Amino acid sequence: MPLSPEQQAEIDALRAEPAPTLRATVPAMEEHLYRAAPVLDHGFVRVVDYMGDDSAICQAARVSYGRGTKSVSNDEGLIRYLMRHWHSTPFEMCEIKLHVKLPVFVARQWIRHRTANVNEYSARYSILDREFYIPEPDALASQSTSNNQGRGEALAGEEAERVLRYLRDDAMRAYDHYEEMISDDGQQGLARELARMNLPANIYTQWYWKTDLHNLLHFLRLRADSHAQYEIRVYAEAIGEMVRDWVPFAYRAFEDYRMGGAVLSAAGLDCVKRMLKGEEVTQETSGMSKGEWREFRSIL
Amino acid sequence: MPLSPEQQAEIDALRAEPAPTLRATVPAMEEHLYRAAPVLDHGFVRVVDYMGDDSAICQAARVSYGRGTKSVSNDEGLIRYLMRHWHSTPFEMCEIKLHVKLPVFVARQWIRHRTANVNEYSARYSILDREFYIPEPDALASQSTSNNQGRGEALAGEEAERVLRYLRDDAMRAYDHYEEMISDDGQQGLARELARMNLPANIYTQWYWKTDLHNLLHFLRLRADSHAQYEIRVYAEAIGEMVRDWVPFAYRAFEDYRMGGAVLSAAGLDCVKRMLKGEEVTQETSGMSKGEWREFRSIL
Amino acid sequence: MPLSPEQQAEIDALRAEPAPTLRATVPAMEEHLYRAAPVLDHGFVRVVDYMGDDSAICQAARVSYGRGTKSVSNDEGLIRYLMRHWHSTPFEMCEIKLHVKLPVFVARQWIRHRTANVNEYSARYSILDREFYIPEPDALASQSTSNNQGRGEALAGEEAERVLRYLRDDAMRAYDHYEEMISDDGQQGLARELARMNLPANIYTQWYWKTDLHNLLHFLRLRADSHAQYEIRVYAEAIGEMVRDWVPFAYRAFEDYRMGGAVLSAAGLDCVKRMLKGEEVTQETSGMSKGEWREFRSIL
Amino acid sequence: MPLSPEQQAEIDALRAEPAPTLRATVPAMEEHLYRAAPVLDHGFVRVVDYMGDDSAICQAARVSYGRGTKSVSNDEGLIRYLMRHWHSTPFEMCEIKLHVKLPVFVARQWIRHRTANVNEYSARYSILDREFYIPEPDALASQSTSNNQGRGEALAGEEAERVLRYLRDDAMRAYDHYEEMISDDGQQGLARELARMNLPANIYTQWYWKTDLHNLLHFLRLRADSHAQYEIRVYAEAIGEMVRDWVPFAYRAFEDYRMGGAVLSAAGLDCVKRMLKGEEVTQETSGMSKGEWREFRSIL
Repeated sequence: MPLSPEQQAEIDALRAEPAPTLRATVPAMEEHLYRAAPVLDHGFVRVVDYMGDDSAICQAARVSYGRGTKSVSNDEGLIRYLMRHWHSTPFEMCEIKLHVKLPVFVARQWIRHRTANVNEYSARYSILDREFYIPEPDALASQSTSNNQGRGEALAGEEAERVLRYLRDDAMRAYDHYEEMISDDGQQGLARELARMNLPANIYTQWYWKTDLHNLLHFLRLRADSHAQYEIRVYAEAIGEMVRDWVPFAYRAFEDYRMGGAVLSAAGLDCVKRMLKGEEVTQETSGMSKGEWREFRSIL
Repeated sequence: MPLSPEQQAEIDALRAEPAPTLRATVPAMEEHLYRAAPVLDHGFVRVVDYMGDDSAICQAARVSYGRGTKSVSNDEGLIRYLMRHWHSTPFEMCEIKLHVKLPVFVARQWIRHRTANVNEYSARYSILDREFYIPEPDALASQSTSNNQGRGEALAGEEAERVLRYLRDDAMRAYDHYEEMISDDGQQGLARELARMNLPANIYTQWYWKTDLHNLLHFLRLRADSHAQYEIRVYAEAIGEMVRDWVPFAYRAFEDYRMGGAVLSAAGLDCVKRMLKGEEVTQETSGMSKGEWREFRSIL
Repeated sequence: MPLSPEQQAEIDALRAEPAPTLRATVPAMEEHLYRAAPVLDHGFVRVVDYMGDDSAICQAARVSYGRGTKSVSNDEGLIRYLMRHWHSTPFEMCEIKLHVKLPVFVARQWIRHRTANVNEYSARYSILDREFYIPEPDALASQSTSNNQGRGEALAGEEAERVLRYLRDDAMRAYDHYEEMISDDGQQGLARELARMNLPANIYTQWYWKTDLHNLLHFLRLRADSHAQYEIRVYAEAIGEMVRDWVPFAYRAFEDYRMGGAVLSAAGLDCVKRMLKGEEVTQETSGMSKGEWREFRSIL
Repeated sequence: MPLSPEQQAEIDALRAEPAPTLRATVPAMEEHLYRAAPVLDHGFVRVVDYMGDDSAICQAARVSYGRGTKSVSNDEGLIRYLMRHWHSTPFEMCEIKLHVKLPVFVARQWIRHRTANVNEYSARYSILDREFYIPEPDALASQSTSNNQGRGEALAGEEAERVLRYLRDDAMRAYDHYEEMISDDGQQGLARELARMNLPANIYTQWYWKTDLHNLLHFLRLRADSHAQYEIRVYAEAIGEMVRDWVPFAYRAFEDYRMGGAVLSAAGLDCVKRMLKGEEVTQETSGMSKGEWREFRSIL
């Protein structure tokens, strides 16, 4: 369970104290505040704060006072136009702050997105909890035979059992030794900043992560993609649900123009044009390599 | 006057509609919302939105749930500790969005601070207003004789009058021609993106500018400094007053550790130590160049 | 003419002194060093320094020693794969430093690309030159009637003449007054940081601009695009020619996958699939707005 | 040993092929190219490429052609002036690219410096090597009793032995199981992206890391500081030696104004002034908290 009773009590108390504000406010996001959406076996994502809404995107695009004139185009039309034409700055005018609990190996992928603010729980200063990610059986995938950084079928039978046993036992033993090493009971006790090095990458960490909507959508495009590792994709999907509630126009435009669409290369575009004229195009006549052609066919 | 009656009416309407929120809320900042603080002759700064407060800094530093435990140290003590030891990430967890009206030559200095989000009024798309910055007589400074990028005494008499006449007349003529060139009355009308090139750098522009507290304080340190150009310093000072209301603990720590303090070089520190031991230190025995020594003396 | 005889002499001297290096070196880029490519009437772009080459992209992608093993795939294939799948970090491993002379209104667009390092000629410290951008007759475009931020036909006849006269005369007068105001001959002389505000946006400035290849390609995608303002597009095109010489594999992949290709929305992709099956799709049955449909048609 | 014979042979071959270049070249840095400076038990830092030198800093600050006029001030004087007055952009005009091999827990601290480009060895794609950081006995420190994130004395006797045994045995067992899990010999074989989660944080990883001189010096200031964790400090120190060879003027200014100096708060500055006038100042009369006073005393 991601939250302890004390944490839940503290959160309940906070949910009971609304304050009046003149800022842009999204009722559906208020529902998310102080609630943790569970992800994986011990992780979660929760919205700590948000700034702006769909109107704020338009207001910034128009550099307007108050809510801005809406005579030229309605808000959704403007947002779709901005997304379609790669105008990124208006989307940067919305900001979100999340509290995330996640395995260290997921955190290591996540942090590659540099345009964000991060405060991570310090294992130099504090003692980490005994919580490790152990995959569900259907997430216990074999190495893909076609994609060097992908997954194949789920493992089965004895092999699956042995893997789970290794993951669990090694984590428990490592944590036992971690505790033993830092203990100052009858000994000096190893510095926390050193003892932590014994802990495996499936241990959970936590951080506050704050970013703007443009960079968040970029994160979602890469991490909610089917090629992303499953363990980060589930975080991206949980965040996507929150973004849908937060800025529904922007999220719908994002789905239409980024997630659901496709990028054609110059060669791909040329092939589509020839195919629309009735030509039978093959890989050999396409001007594409085999890999490109395979990807092109899967798009269509 | 920075706001038109229509703008004021729109803002008044917005100020009349508070909404309940569970987010961190600062009553003193709510007072700033939708109010423009006038700067220079036609400019202003107004808070459009804000995220976080002093507690949010501590909450992020502790990576805590809810408001976080306060047993270890109180919030102000923690904030002072973080500021003193150059911990920047907790301060990045607060964000502010401002609407600023400012002369173009000020905007050109301002934009050098790159870690921010900006939406500027588009002179490709829209027609600029006939508003130009004309300095007050006491801001009409001569070139400094000692500092190549500084100011000396205010100009006086005929020279001052001539300068003001040039600034006003050239601006008016440039704007007349701008209007004439873009007019499509009886002619094709020059593209706005071209016509704007005739306008001088004291014309006013507007933008939405959003940044986090850490980068905002860095901006204030450089731009509220006595060496900054007066015309950007007054913006920094106006923003400083808002930050004081927003995050009073952080602002006080900033004043103590950044604005009011001093940086000593290795040589400067060595001199202070020798002076505290009673030694008479001169520039010759200080190990400093004349410039460094002059700055060192002015600190003490 | 962009370079004075003294500048040319200095550059000639530098071109005569090659030094041996073990770093990645691109002979075609060495040809560009210390040569200014002229742009517009007084502007230029010149390569001051560069880091990396096509091999360096692959080396970083493989995190390899030396030149890295090339058994898995050849360099061009790897670069195309990286570009196609939006892997940005290997392209960030190449860096370029340019010296650019450009009109202020172009500089104001350019600086919106924030992920770069910039040192601009200081008009607080130094005196600007009397050099202004005056468009060629065929660049003297009217406002587009269909696109609020675009251009239509070139102006003709008396209208064109009047525009050129205004641009020239206003610039000359503004500069005369600038010189007169800063003069300390028989008067105090206005501070440079103030006097510059009288100068129009077609005056030339200069800067050193340094960025990595990934961000440079992003700049080129937006600024070499047909929707970009002509006056910045010519700079982007001049830089594009340099990049083609610098990293030919990466540039070709960029042309194929970014510049020459197309992005289809979910609705657009759906229409293509239906059209390939022989269906007659119209705007009404497309699920797209009129604007989207028009853009979709123009792609195909 | 950090480099295998094959790697060494490849590097030797590269060192034997200098090419002529017109770019800024630093002979002392050429010596570093393709040589790995060993750090910790299996780690290293090696310079892959560099851009610029001390002159390039000045050239950018002056926005000059060629080497720029040096009449106003000599290069070292200008660099010291820039450093003293916090001018950061000229230092951003130098860039360095390093190949670093480092334990994962060090990489996790390092990556918090976001203004850099990184390509890390992919454990989704590739198999990690069996190399783990095991501290030397004198680095096997106990937890500090005064500083929650610091170290005390080295562990001794049986306690030290037990810690080393745990670190070694747990690492070996985790790696044995990692190998066993990914093996496809007689079984499906677990996906690499999953199997890696069993590996502890003292395993070595590698990356290409590229940053500009300004951000590199900021990294050194924080990570070569005595409060930084020893295991990252040794990397910072190794890099510092390279920077000293690369840009000797800038590095000396950095040592004088950043590393060797001190920051005084407003209260600290006030105390120094009072002490210089002969007053006996105590913590009680200083206006500082106990923590601030202790730090103030340690500076003087």
